[in-house]
Amino acid sequence: MEQTELQVEIPSVLKQTSCQNIKGFDCVDYGNGNNPNPLENAISDKESYGESIAGSKITKLELQEVVIISLPASPSGLHIGQTKLVLHSEKCENTDQNDTKNPYPQLAKQKKFHSQPILVRENGDRKVVHSEAIRDHRFDPFKTWSGRLERQISNLRGKATQEPDIEAGASERDEIEEAPGVDRYFDALEGPELDTLRATEVSVLPEDEKWPFLLRFPVNAFGICLGVSSQAILWKTLNTSPAMSFLHISPMPNLILWWAALALILFVSFVYLLKIVFYFEAVKREYHHPVRVNFFFAPWIACMFMALAVPPSIAVNLRPFIWYILMTPIFILELKIYGQWMSGGQRRLSKVANPSNHLSIVGNFVGALLGANMGLKEGPIFFFAVGLAHYIVLFVTLYQRLPTNAALPKELHPVFFLFVAAPSVACMAWAKIQGDFDYAARIPYFIALFLYMSLAVRVNFFTGIRFSLAWWAYTFPMTGASIATIKYTMAVTNVVTRSLSVCLSAISTFTVSTLLVYTIVHAFVLRDLFPNDISIAITRKKPKFSKMLSHFRSSSADSKDFDSSISKNSEI
Amino acid sequence: MEQTELQVEIPSVLKQTSCQNIKGFDCVDYGNGNNPNPLENAISDKESYGESIAGSKITKLELQEVVIISLPASPSGLHIGQTKLVLHSEKCENTDQNDTKNPYPQLAKQKKFHSQPILVRENGDRKVVHSEAIRDHRFDPFKTWSGRLERQISNLRGKATQEPDIEAGASERDEIEEAPGVDRYFDALEGPELDTLRATEVSVLPEDEKWPFLLRFPVNAFGICLGVSSQAILWKTLNTSPAMSFLHISPMPNLILWWAALALILFVSFVYLLKIVFYFEAVKREYHHPVRVNFFFAPWIACMFMALAVPPSIAVNLRPFIWYILMTPIFILELKIYGQWMSGGQRRLSKVANPSNHLSIVGNFVGALLGANMGLKEGPIFFFAVGLAHYIVLFVTLYQRLPTNAALPKELHPVFFLFVAAPSVACMAWAKIQGDFDYAARIPYFIALFLYMSLAVRVNFFTGIRFSLAWWAYTFPMTGASIATIKYTMAVTNVVTRSLSVCLSAISTFTVSTLLVYTIVHAFVLRDLFPNDISIAITRKKPKFSKMLSHFRSSSADSKDFDSSISKNSEI
Amino acid sequence: MEQTELQVEIPSVLKQTSCQNIKGFDCVDYGNGNNPNPLENAISDKESYGESIAGSKITKLELQEVVIISLPASPSGLHIGQTKLVLHSEKCENTDQNDTKNPYPQLAKQKKFHSQPILVRENGDRKVVHSEAIRDHRFDPFKTWSGRLERQISNLRGKATQEPDIEAGASERDEIEEAPGVDRYFDALEGPELDTLRATEVSVLPEDEKWPFLLRFPVNAFGICLGVSSQAILWKTLNTSPAMSFLHISPMPNLILWWAALALILFVSFVYLLKIVFYFEAVKREYHHPVRVNFFFAPWIACMFMALAVPPSIAVNLRPFIWYILMTPIFILELKIYGQWMSGGQRRLSKVANPSNHLSIVGNFVGALLGANMGLKEGPIFFFAVGLAHYIVLFVTLYQRLPTNAALPKELHPVFFLFVAAPSVACMAWAKIQGDFDYAARIPYFIALFLYMSLAVRVNFFTGIRFSLAWWAYTFPMTGASIATIKYTMAVTNVVTRSLSVCLSAISTFTVSTLLVYTIVHAFVLRDLFPNDISIAITRKKPKFSKMLSHFRSSSADSKDFDSSISKNSEI
Repeated sequence: MEQTELQVEIPSVLKQTSCQNIKGFDCVDYGNGNNPNPLENAISDKESYGESIAGSKITKLELQEVVIISLPASPSGLHIGQTKLVLHSEKCENTDQNDTKNPYPQLAKQKKFHSQPILVRENGDRKVVHSEAIRDHRFDPFKTWSGRLERQISNLRGKATQEPDIEAGASERDEIEEAPGVDRYFDALEGPELDTLRATEVSVLPEDEKWPFLLRFPVNAFGICLGVSSQAILWKTLNTSPAMSFLHISPMPNLILWWAALALILFVSFVYLLKIVFYFEAVKREYHHPVRVNFFFAPWIACMFMALAVPPSIAVNLRPFIWYILMTPIFILELKIYGQWMSGGQRRLSKVANPSNHLSIVGNFVGALLGANMGLKEGPIFFFAVGLAHYIVLFVTLYQRLPTNAALPKELHPVFFLFVAAPSVACMAWAKIQGDFDYAARIPYFIALFLYMSLAVRVNFFTGIRFSLAWWAYTFPMTGASIATIKYTMAVTNVVTRSLSVCLSAISTFTVSTLLVYTIVHAFVLRDLFPNDISIAITRKKPKFSKMLSHFRSSSADSKDFDSSISKNSEI
Repeated sequence: MEQTELQVEIPSVLKQTSCQNIKGFDCVDYGNGNNPNPLENAISDKESYGESIAGSKITKLELQEVVIISLPASPSGLHIGQTKLVLHSEKCENTDQNDTKNPYPQLAKQKKFHSQPILVRENGDRKVVHSEAIRDHRFDPFKTWSGRLERQISNLRGKATQEPDIEAGASERDEIEEAPGVDRYFDALEGPELDTLRATEVSVLPEDEKWPFLLRFPVNAFGICLGVSSQAILWKTLNTSPAMSFLHISPMPNLILWWAALALILFVSFVYLLKIVFYFEAVKREYHHPVRVNFFFAPWIACMFMALAVPPSIAVNLRPFIWYILMTPIFILELKIYGQWMSGGQRRLSKVANPSNHLSIVGNFVGALLGANMGLKEGPIFFFAVGLAHYIVLFVTLYQRLPTNAALPKELHPVFFLFVAAPSVACMAWAKIQGDFDYAARIPYFIALFLYMSLAVRVNFFTGIRFSLAWWAYTFPMTGASIATIKYTMAVTNVVTRSLSVCLSAISTFTVSTLLVYTIVHAFVLRDLFPNDISIAITRKKPKFSKMLSHFRSSSADSKDFDSSISKNSEI
Repeated sequence: MEQTELQVEIPSVLKQTSCQNIKGFDCVDYGNGNNPNPLENAISDKESYGESIAGSKITKLELQEVVIISLPASPSGLHIGQTKLVLHSEKCENTDQNDTKNPYPQLAKQKKFHSQPILVRENGDRKVVHSEAIRDHRFDPFKTWSGRLERQISNLRGKATQEPDIEAGASERDEIEEAPGVDRYFDALEGPELDTLRATEVSVLPEDEKWPFLLRFPVNAFGICLGVSSQAILWKTLNTSPAMSFLHISPMPNLILWWAALALILFVSFVYLLKIVFYFEAVKREYHHPVRVNFFFAPWIACMFMALAVPPSIAVNLRPFIWYILMTPIFILELKIYGQWMSGGQRRLSKVANPSNHLSIVGNFVGALLGANMGLKEGPIFFFAVGLAHYIVLFVTLYQRLPTNAALPKELHPVFFLFVAAPSVACMAWAKIQGDFDYAARIPYFIALFLYMSLAVRVNFFTGIRFSLAWWAYTFPMTGASIATIKYTMAVTNVVTRSLSVCLSAISTFTVSTLLVYTIVHAFVLRDLFPNDISIAITRKKPKFSKMLSHFRSSSADSKDFDSSISKNSEI
């Protein structure tokens, strides 16, 4: 099933990228099973690669010009690589540089952050040589294997002219090898999801091209699974709840949604697994991203949603061992992340607090609910307790809006709906543990309801926020609130609670449908569902002033200004 | 009944203001019902008003001097208006100004913040012309209608000489029209209740005169209603509680206090309603004041106290619809204010946290208690849950004393007693919801008791804090603790709890009585119960250095220094 | 029994100090009861003291040199006092100073912070005169009586030559009399326990010598009592709990540990009492230390542990009056310390938050547990409620890691184990109050368990932290978690819980044993169990630059630089 979707999705992206003369979407082809071993391909490419480099050397020597080589790379076999040779002729008035290897050392340094063709725009007499056989190396640092291996082999062949390139590549690798500190993420990015590059920052990866699909596939994609699987639970509850029997909901929506969610989870997991395999560096950077890390809980929560939403026709009672399997990664992640909050350092809570942290809390309550559904007792209470303690901490911290949480937006943003998630799941979990929707369950339920209303009256603020895949994750709290309302209606059945249940269910289904339409439009019409994932492409250190400058210049400046600014900078 | 009190209070204030040659207390006369339409009066005044302006023009032209006109205004008909023409003769050495309209543009600009007679004190040859027909315009910006209308009419008549005045008035209006940002309140004011102007700030309204009564009537006045109505509950509880029957309290104190509280609420509400009608701008500024806004919960809480204190002889069971009516404004205010806390911006909790925020929490618990008393179930739990969640947030935030809450005083201040309010009402609410003073009710009760003791041992710190009307609001937590203690005594009846009940009741009654005496002394002897409400008179933007300077100079400087400082400033 | 230990411990310290030619350990001799009245001794010493001062005057006059007198002092009779006359010969080139009393006023000022022989190292021609009859005055400011009295008597005798010395002594006394503000502790000290002097700071007391034993005996020593007495509870629980009967633990370990703990408490209390009597100033400074103050709860908690651990063979039911006696100091301390948190000022929670604050919370839960064990009801709930409220505040604050809590270490430190203490005791207290290990008890238990695991996985971070006496206090949370696990095992008896009980008990006993070995090694082999307690020796004000400089210079600089730096400083 996911194969089908693969075929639908990929070509569309391919078409687009090929227009831009870039072959970035090059490793998902493994999905077809053609080249299971990227190492082989990488090695087999060396022949032609070496030759093209030699060729570029000649060009350089002839023209006595600055040559900036941007080598597109891919870990796969079926690539249409290319090399851009950017030639930059300049008068060397005050300098006496005969070193053919690197006549402009400052520019060489510059280069490592600007493999995007900045200079191309800056003077006229440039030549861009496209060579099918030469791979794009710009994405190498994020790759798991290829880059390093290839270079080692090249080195063995002893190519002198390649030296400066290797040097630059090495420092670029140094730049990326270690994920940036959490401070860098806050310094370099902005927005409530920390996904927009600040004006003063430069990206490690080319900003004006489309990256390889896997690099653009964020862990946020699991949010879609959360959205769809929670809908499956909602429709199961609508179907099975006696209080809602007046609606006569058939079991079909649950069944369909469950299968759809299953397919989605399998597909997203598979693609993300590919990313882990081929772009481990990128995954590492997502994991170190203070907001993104919370989405690493999403796959497991989605799986638990699947277990909760399982149609009665497929299974009635699930085996407890599933619970243990699903809770293990959540528990390990929690040990890691809550420990970071508490034990301080860069990732202390007062620094990273963000509504998306709710994702790392809600797992506890979902786990408690699932465990209690399976008839377990102590395990669910354990996770309920852990969730409660950390929820109080997070709730207070987020409500306080510490001065250090400057990244949070002033306006309402969909991410705020995550506030509703934890209490609405918590009330269901407690009701299940206690066996009754008692006062202790109603308190979190009413808190969720109040937060929901508090956000709903501010909903007009939404205008002007651009769509993002992460929004999917912000729908499941609505669905959770609807389900909790139905559970509450089972305890307090009257016309008000019934209406509320219907209302909230309708709103949540409507929201999910709208989002689905949006997603489809962005995926197939606008073809920007997966934009370049800037969050993972920040530099490890603050870019120096000259780099920022050149970054600004890249659109409008002429080469004269550019040179003078660089020379000034170097004087300083 | 409130008419009587009106007649008692107003004349005393009138006498005082008339000594100062200012007719500030001018719009309460509507209370007599003579002129229900202020618009008519405003228009009918125009004739004489225009004439006096013309007269002042002549004076100006003759003397070639700076004329600063302070026009007292009133929206009512029965006013004894006046005009102050402050004549300021100066040699114009270095300037060549023939413009008769505004010979000193700098001073004209200066003027708009200093309609108080600054220059009057600065040179000897001044003339103050009193004209019955001319109104005091200084308070116009805070008025709902008059100012704008009058000016429009004047403009239609096309009086050229009035131009500079209008200009100044327009910018003054701009200054005030939009309420200041919350930052300005923190910057411009100090003290635990943010009610004192910092030394570096200037007031929009004249600081050295008494303002119109309505402008000086703060929303804090509802605190008196809280204090008296909570006493009514206390004496009802003392009368009806079996555990306290050994005291043989008659139902009379409850009855008297209830009627007194009712009268107070009606009177305060009526006067405040007048303020809303005539000085909406001032009300708006109170609503934007980060501390004062919490007092907007007070009227509704006072009403709920009245419902709780209703003497058995008047009604035994109240109808639930009253609860719904009273909870609606509280719910709306909460959506607004809690939303501001969470969704950030200038009013985020870490910025505005102050013990007075408890007033915005305690309404939930009072509502829960009242609802449970009326036999409701889900509604009270809803408000209890909302209150609990936000109380935890507020309690932690206030206890932490974040570095951003610099406005809070180091010493104990009566406002800290609000800490006791929420838990003592919460325990009663829970006991009523649960139908039993169980452990869950005892925990908040004991927290309240500990906080009470913690504050009581620090009570000597009070020395040296000047009396304020807001103190009334700080008595009801004591009364609440007493009532909670009586309820607890009903659950755990022994000599210790009985003594505690008697003790706390005595303390709270004593405190309220003392405060009553204070209030009467301040109202009728010292006549400063309602001082100028500086909190609402801050400028929208930080005053410029020259304004601050002239503000400082206003007491001691001579005109030479003043001029040189201005010229220096303008050079800068 | 404590006499025996006294004899074992003291001589070893004596030997060491005598090698350094300092008689600092001079007042514990009172333990032998020889001189119960230190005042008498102080007076009787005056004769010889006055003579030696006279002698030092002659030396000064003869040599025309700077004389810095460091007078070792002791409050007791059996002392081997000494005087250091540090002679400093210098050419006075630009100054014309004939004043024989104080030729270098700048140096005299300097001196008051550097009674340690700084200048001794700085030039060669120095003479150090040792006189048995003269006492070491350097520790006088921390003494309760001696210093002041002696000086008053000397003054009466009218010794002119002593004047500069008295002056210096007086300002030194001023320096110490008032304990430093809490800001000074944070500025001057570092480390998670604020016990290391920052590089830029100087100590009031000599850093390079061993101080009198009592000055080095910190309140942290009560931590040992906590560690041992909690072990006694553990072994009592292992012995009496039916769920652990399969281990067949004899009642002997409990009995032995209880007696050992009792002896320890008596000994530590006795020594600390001596400190209070003779070095009240030092105790005051410990009480003002933001971390150390929490250890003032330790004696009372240890006593409660003793009451909980009382072997069944000694007593089965304890009388409730013991509870009231033990809770009184805890209650008073809480009123004081929680009040400081809330009412702001320098000791507000956002400033002093530190895991050691848990010690000031856990007393509530231990009190609640003990009270419930004794059959009390309301008292335990009172303390449980107070503990709960403040625990939530502290837990959130510590988890947030506010930017103001910069003193906390990034790495895990044993102090973090205090996190486990409060919830593990709280669960037992609630289970006892409720009479059942219900859900409300399991929630804190599971929170404790999670925190324990969260810390345990980080345990490798411990490497490289130097041993401190305070570690003992960090073992009782582990023991508490073990006991709570056994209680939980009684509610949920299965192989997992039993294994967990055995495991945690083994870990806690192992930890305590290891710490015991460490302590013995440090006490008797390395003889550094009680190092100089720098925390109490910080200066009241930030040392001036010249002092810091001279402090740095004290090891390597020559006198020329030293003088020039001082003259430069005075010019500035």
